[in-house]
Amino acid sequence: MSGNTLGLLFTVTTFGESHGPAIGAVADGCPPGMLLTEADIQLDLDRRKPGTSRHVTQRKEEDKVEILSGVFEGKTTGTPIALLIRNTDQRSQDYGDILQTFRPGHADYAYQYKYGIRDPRGGGRSSARLTAPVVAAAVIAKKWLHEKYGTEFYGYMSQLGELEIPFKDASEIEKNPFFAANAELIPQLETYMDELRRAGDSCGARIEVRARNVPAGLGEPLFDKLDADIAHAMMGINAVKGVEIGAGFRSVVQRGSEHGDELHSDGFASNNSGGTLGGISSGQDLRVSIAIKPTSSIMSPKQSVDLSGKPIIVQTKGRHDPCVGIRATPIAEAMLALVLMDHVLRHRAQCADVSTSISPIPASQPGSFHD
Amino acid sequence: MSGNTLGLLFTVTTFGESHGPAIGAVADGCPPGMLLTEADIQLDLDRRKPGTSRHVTQRKEEDKVEILSGVFEGKTTGTPIALLIRNTDQRSQDYGDILQTFRPGHADYAYQYKYGIRDPRGGGRSSARLTAPVVAAAVIAKKWLHEKYGTEFYGYMSQLGELEIPFKDASEIEKNPFFAANAELIPQLETYMDELRRAGDSCGARIEVRARNVPAGLGEPLFDKLDADIAHAMMGINAVKGVEIGAGFRSVVQRGSEHGDELHSDGFASNNSGGTLGGISSGQDLRVSIAIKPTSSIMSPKQSVDLSGKPIIVQTKGRHDPCVGIRATPIAEAMLALVLMDHVLRHRAQCADVSTSISPIPASQPGSFHD
Amino acid sequence: MSGNTLGLLFTVTTFGESHGPAIGAVADGCPPGMLLTEADIQLDLDRRKPGTSRHVTQRKEEDKVEILSGVFEGKTTGTPIALLIRNTDQRSQDYGDILQTFRPGHADYAYQYKYGIRDPRGGGRSSARLTAPVVAAAVIAKKWLHEKYGTEFYGYMSQLGELEIPFKDASEIEKNPFFAANAELIPQLETYMDELRRAGDSCGARIEVRARNVPAGLGEPLFDKLDADIAHAMMGINAVKGVEIGAGFRSVVQRGSEHGDELHSDGFASNNSGGTLGGISSGQDLRVSIAIKPTSSIMSPKQSVDLSGKPIIVQTKGRHDPCVGIRATPIAEAMLALVLMDHVLRHRAQCADVSTSISPIPASQPGSFHD
Amino acid sequence: MSGNTLGLLFTVTTFGESHGPAIGAVADGCPPGMLLTEADIQLDLDRRKPGTSRHVTQRKEEDKVEILSGVFEGKTTGTPIALLIRNTDQRSQDYGDILQTFRPGHADYAYQYKYGIRDPRGGGRSSARLTAPVVAAAVIAKKWLHEKYGTEFYGYMSQLGELEIPFKDASEIEKNPFFAANAELIPQLETYMDELRRAGDSCGARIEVRARNVPAGLGEPLFDKLDADIAHAMMGINAVKGVEIGAGFRSVVQRGSEHGDELHSDGFASNNSGGTLGGISSGQDLRVSIAIKPTSSIMSPKQSVDLSGKPIIVQTKGRHDPCVGIRATPIAEAMLALVLMDHVLRHRAQCADVSTSISPIPASQPGSFHD
Repeated sequence: MSGNTLGLLFTVTTFGESHGPAIGAVADGCPPGMLLTEADIQLDLDRRKPGTSRHVTQRKEEDKVEILSGVFEGKTTGTPIALLIRNTDQRSQDYGDILQTFRPGHADYAYQYKYGIRDPRGGGRSSARLTAPVVAAAVIAKKWLHEKYGTEFYGYMSQLGELEIPFKDASEIEKNPFFAANAELIPQLETYMDELRRAGDSCGARIEVRARNVPAGLGEPLFDKLDADIAHAMMGINAVKGVEIGAGFRSVVQRGSEHGDELHSDGFASNNSGGTLGGISSGQDLRVSIAIKPTSSIMSPKQSVDLSGKPIIVQTKGRHDPCVGIRATPIAEAMLALVLMDHVLRHRAQCADVSTSISPIPASQPGSFHD
Repeated sequence: MSGNTLGLLFTVTTFGESHGPAIGAVADGCPPGMLLTEADIQLDLDRRKPGTSRHVTQRKEEDKVEILSGVFEGKTTGTPIALLIRNTDQRSQDYGDILQTFRPGHADYAYQYKYGIRDPRGGGRSSARLTAPVVAAAVIAKKWLHEKYGTEFYGYMSQLGELEIPFKDASEIEKNPFFAANAELIPQLETYMDELRRAGDSCGARIEVRARNVPAGLGEPLFDKLDADIAHAMMGINAVKGVEIGAGFRSVVQRGSEHGDELHSDGFASNNSGGTLGGISSGQDLRVSIAIKPTSSIMSPKQSVDLSGKPIIVQTKGRHDPCVGIRATPIAEAMLALVLMDHVLRHRAQCADVSTSISPIPASQPGSFHD
Repeated sequence: MSGNTLGLLFTVTTFGESHGPAIGAVADGCPPGMLLTEADIQLDLDRRKPGTSRHVTQRKEEDKVEILSGVFEGKTTGTPIALLIRNTDQRSQDYGDILQTFRPGHADYAYQYKYGIRDPRGGGRSSARLTAPVVAAAVIAKKWLHEKYGTEFYGYMSQLGELEIPFKDASEIEKNPFFAANAELIPQLETYMDELRRAGDSCGARIEVRARNVPAGLGEPLFDKLDADIAHAMMGINAVKGVEIGAGFRSVVQRGSEHGDELHSDGFASNNSGGTLGGISSGQDLRVSIAIKPTSSIMSPKQSVDLSGKPIIVQTKGRHDPCVGIRATPIAEAMLALVLMDHVLRHRAQCADVSTSISPIPASQPGSFHD
Repeated sequence: MSGNTLGLLFTVTTFGESHGPAIGAVADGCPPGMLLTEADIQLDLDRRKPGTSRHVTQRKEEDKVEILSGVFEGKTTGTPIALLIRNTDQRSQDYGDILQTFRPGHADYAYQYKYGIRDPRGGGRSSARLTAPVVAAAVIAKKWLHEKYGTEFYGYMSQLGELEIPFKDASEIEKNPFFAANAELIPQLETYMDELRRAGDSCGARIEVRARNVPAGLGEPLFDKLDADIAHAMMGINAVKGVEIGAGFRSVVQRGSEHGDELHSDGFASNNSGGTLGGISSGQDLRVSIAIKPTSSIMSPKQSVDLSGKPIIVQTKGRHDPCVGIRATPIAEAMLALVLMDHVLRHRAQCADVSTSISPIPASQPGSFHD
C-alpha cells in the first residue's frame, strides 16, 4: 500500500507537486449509482482556496477541478474517479535559492536526506497545496455519507495563538476567513493577524472537527480502530502536532467517575469519549481536536545550514502565511469524512449480516461538550 | 489488510481474548539472521505483567511466551515468527453479569452493536491484556533497530492525575511501578493511588515515549508519514485519548520564530518538531506524549442500560485498576518500536540506493525539551 | 501486507515450519455469529493428512487442530480465529545432509540465496506440510459460503502423469486416495504409482476444482479480478506450474463463435468462460484446472551443487511422494474457498446497496463442460 | 488496497474508461533519481497502439502521454508519477444499442450485475484500451530494472489459433504486427487473419514472455511468491484464460527425473522451473506463457438476452479485433516488469543486509527451453 494512498476500501491516491503541471487524486471504491458533478467538488475547493482573504497566501490558483473518469451520465460507476486540478499560478521566482538551503521547520532537510533529490518549488510535494486533491476527493465521501446516514461534518477554529475562540454559532463559520464560530471576536482576530504579519512572524491554531449522525459500529480493532485511523489522518495533515479525541488531554486530570459517559435510556449523558468506545463508534458525535504549529516560513531571519552544512541565515520573501491553521478547517473535515467512508465499507464488509438486537442508543444532545 | 494487523512490511497480527485459551502474535517480515530467544521476549513481558505491584490488576498471569516458528538454531529465518502466551488465571466469576450490561466507558456497547456478539469475560478482545502480544512482538523490532542503528527506546510517566512528575533520572524508571523518572515523588504517587483505590475511583495519566539514534529519512508522505503512523499506533492503545509529537498542543501558542528548530552546523538548537519534519524523521530524538483516560471499571456505581435499553446501575467488583496508565509505558514503547521498524523497511525498499549528499545533522543534546 | 497473508478482508496469515514446534494460521475478518468447532476443521484436515494411503508420505502426523481464539460459546465473534497444529512426527534424521546441498527442483537454493539462512528440516517453510493451516482456515470460508449461498466446492484429479481420468461420478472422489471421480480406473492408477515408486521416480498431475452456487458479481477489476486472484492463490500452491480458468489453453484454438458462451433466458449454453466475465463472477460454476509438477524428491540420483558450488550427487532417502498431486485436491479447494470468501466481503463493501435490475441468470447445468 | 492498484511497494493505480475524457495511471514508490521523460514512455505506447496494422482495431488514438508529477528536472523524485492520456477518437455511435444487451463473452452482464450501472461505450472500464496506462507505467519499471540489473524483457506470439509459430529470431518480433519471432510464417499468419475477418469470426493466441538477468531471491512466500504474483498479473489481462510458468501443463506428463533442473557448477542444465523455485527467483530466465481467448466481439450473430431477460441476437458492427492476442505482447511484458519491480523492492526491504554466502548460479544459456 503506497504512502500516497489513504484508506483500505475507499482509497484516495494523490499526486502532484506545488509547481508541477497538475495535482490530483484517484478515488477508488466509491459505491456506484451516486450523483456526482464537478460543481459538487468545486464548492468545497473554493472554501479552501488561497487568496480568499488577506490573511492567507496570496497565490491566485483557480483550482478548477475536472472529473476524468468514474462517472457516467452523472452517476458514479464504481470505477476509479480521477480528479485533476491544473496548476496555473506558480511564481517560481519567489523560491529561488531554497534548493540550496534548509528552511527551519520545513520538510526540506528531511526530503533531501530521504530521496537525495527534491522539487523545492513552493515546497514541492510537501506543500499545503496538496490538500486540495484531498478536499476534492472527500466531497465524494461527504456526499455519500450524508445521503446514506444524514452524516454531517463541520469544523471550526477554537483557538488562534493564545486567543481562545469559544463556540457561539455554527452559522458564523462560513462567514469569516478564520472559520471561527464566533462573530464577536473576528475584529480581534483580524488585528492579531495583522500584527503578526507586520512582525514577520506566525502563530499556531487549534481546530475542532465534528461529525454527527455517525453510524455506530465503525472501527476495526485492535489496530484500525476508528479513533486510531482518525489520528493517523489528522496527524498526517501538514503542520499538525497533536490530535485529541473527546476529552483528549483533559482526560489525564479527570476522574473515572467523571469521564465515563453514563448511559441513560434516552442517550449518553456526556461525550468525553468523543464518539468512540474501544475504538468503535458509539453513534455519539465524533469530536476531534488538532493542534497546528506556527508557520515555518516567516519573514524574520532564522539560522540554518546549506547543503554542505555551512551556517546561513534563511529569510522568507514573497508569499507566506502568518497562520496555516486558518485554512486547515476544510482539510480536517475532509480527512474525517474519508476515514469514516472507508470504515463504513470495512464495517459492512464483515458485519453486513449482523442483526443488532440492541437498540441504537441516541447520541448526546448537541452542545453537550464544547459546543 | 486486516484490522488486527499493524504495519505494512514488518507486520504484527495479534489474536486472542482475555479469557480464551491463549493470546499471541505473528510477526512477519523480520530480516533473517538475527539472534532471538524466548528469554529476550520474556524480559519485556515481565515489565508489563499484571500483579507486579499493589497498584495494578491483581491477576496472576504467568505470561510465559513460546516461540512457535520463524527461528532456527537461535536465528530468525525471515519466515513468520509466531509467539504464543497461554492464559492461565481467568477468574471468570468476577464478570458474571456483564454480558447483559454495558459498562460506561467500556467497549461493551460498541462491540455488541458492531458484532452482535461479544466475549465479555475480562473485556474479551478489548482487554488491556491484548497488549502483551504487542509488547512481545516489539522485542523483535527493538532488538533489530538497536543492533542496526543503536536505536534506544524509553518511556516514562510524566503526569498522574493532576500530579506532574518532572523527569529527573532515567535510571529510576524501572525501579518503581509507575515508570516514573523521579524517585522523590514516588511516596506521593503511592499515597495518591491508595486514596483513589479506597474511593473506588480512578485517574488518568500522561506518558512520554522517546526514541534516540533514529535514522533520518523515515516516513512515507503524504499519508504514511512517520508521525501519522505513530499517532495511529498510539491512539490505538487502549484508553488513549490524545497524542502529541514534539511541542504538541503547546505549538498552538508558540510563535514561528520560537517553534522552528534552528539548524546549526553542530545540530538542531531545539526539538519542538519532536523528531519529524514534513512527516519524515530528521534524526532528532522522537518525542511522543500520550493521554490515558481514567479507568472505566470503577468501584463506585454508574448509571447504564442493559441489552434491552432498561436503566440499571453498574458497579465493578473484583479486580480493577485505579489507573491503567500505570502499565502503559511498555506498550507505548512497543508501539513506537513497531512503527519505526516498519518504516525502516519501507524506506530502504524505495531509497536503498540514495547516496545522500548532505551530511546527516546530529540530533539535539538530550535534555533539550522535557528531559 | 505480508507475503504470509492471503486476502484483503478475510485474511489468513500462516506460520510454522515443517519441523518446528507448531504450524498454524490466524484467520481475520470472519463475520460474527457463525457456529464453528474444532470438529468442523478436523474433518477437512483428515482428508489431507499424510499417511492415509501407501501412495503418500509416510509421516504420521496427528494434525490435531486447536482453536485458540475468535470463538465464544461455539460462535465466531468477528475477532481473529487462531488455529494451532502441533508438529509431532518430525523424523529429522531423514534430512541430515541437505543443509549443505541444493536438491534440484526444490526451494533450497532460492531460500538460501534470499534469506542467507534456512531451516532445511523437512523443507522448512517450503514444505507441503504448510498447506495444513490453509486447509484448516478454509473450513471457515467453506462453511460461511455454504450457509449463506449454498456454495459447494469439489475437486478431483483429472490426470495422473499421462493417464487421463475422465469424470464419471462425484461420489467416488472421497473413496480413493487419488481424489479421482472414476472408480473404474483406480486399479490402473494404483499400478502406475507402484511402478513409479519402485523406479524411484515421480510424475505430475492435473487437478480440477469447481465451485457452484457462486454469487454473481464477485471480483474487483482491473487488477483484483476474481480469476486473477484465483490464479494467484493456485499458482502459489507448492508445485503448481500452470492455472487455467474455463477453457484455459484450449481457448487458443477455439473460434469466437465457439468460445463465447451464449446467453439464453434459461441460462448460459456453455461454460468456456469458467465462471467469470471480465474478471467478475457470472453466477456460472467456477472451473479451475491446475498443473502439478512431478515431485523433486526422488530416489534416483540427480546432479546438483553444494553451498560452495562444488558438484555433488543428490539422492533422496526416506520418505518421498511419487506424486504430490495426490494430496493437492483439498488444498486447491481450500484456496478457491478463501478467494471467494474474501471477494464476497470485498463486493459487499462497495456494492451492498446495488439493487440489481437484471435478473440473475441461472448457471449452466452440471456436466456441461468437463463434468 | 483497491482493486485498481497493482503492487505493494511499487504501486500502479489506473483510472479511466474507454470513452471517458482520459485514461491514466499513478505509479508510486519509484526510487528517486532515475532519468525519465515522456519520450521514454511514448516509445512503448506506440508499440501497443491501435491502428498500426490492418489486423487490429481501427481506432485512431494518438495515445500521447503527459507526465503530470513525480519528475523534476528530468529525474524521478520518489513522489507519485501521474501519467495522463487523453481519449480523442471515441466513435460512440458504433456501440449504440449495447447498453440494453449483454454481448456473450463480454464483461457487460457481470459489470451490470455487480455495479447496477456501467459505461458501455467501447466496453467502458473493461476495454482493452485500459492496458495503455499499464504499459506506460511499466516503462518506469523496465527502465529501472534494466539500469540496475541489466534486466531485459521480451515477448512474442508462439501460436495463433491452431498455427504454431516456432521461435526463430528475436529481432523479427518488432517487425511484424503479430510480434512473432519468425519472419517466414508471416504471410501465412496474414492470410489466416484475413480469412477470419471475412468470416466475421475470431481466434485465440498463445503469448510467451521472458525476462533475463533477473536477480535471484525475488518472491515473498508463502502467498506472494513470484510465480503467484506473475500469475495474478497475467490472468488479470483482458481475455487471458490460462497462465503457465516454465514447463507449465507439460509438467503433468513429465517425470521428476526429467523435470527437475539439475545444477552444475556452471549453471542450470534446463529450465523447466521457468525461473522460480519454491516461488523465489533462481536467477534463471523467467518463462511465462499465457492463453488468450478468441475475441467476443464478432461479426457473426450470437444468442444473448437483454436487460429484462428477453432473448435477442447480438452482432457486432463497426470495429472489431479478429484476435486480441495480436496486441497482447507489450501488455504481458509490462505486467512482468511491474511484478518484478515490486518484488525487488519487497525483497530488499527485508533482505537488504543478507550477505549471501552462496555464489549466484549463472542462468541457463539462451535457447535452452523454447527459444
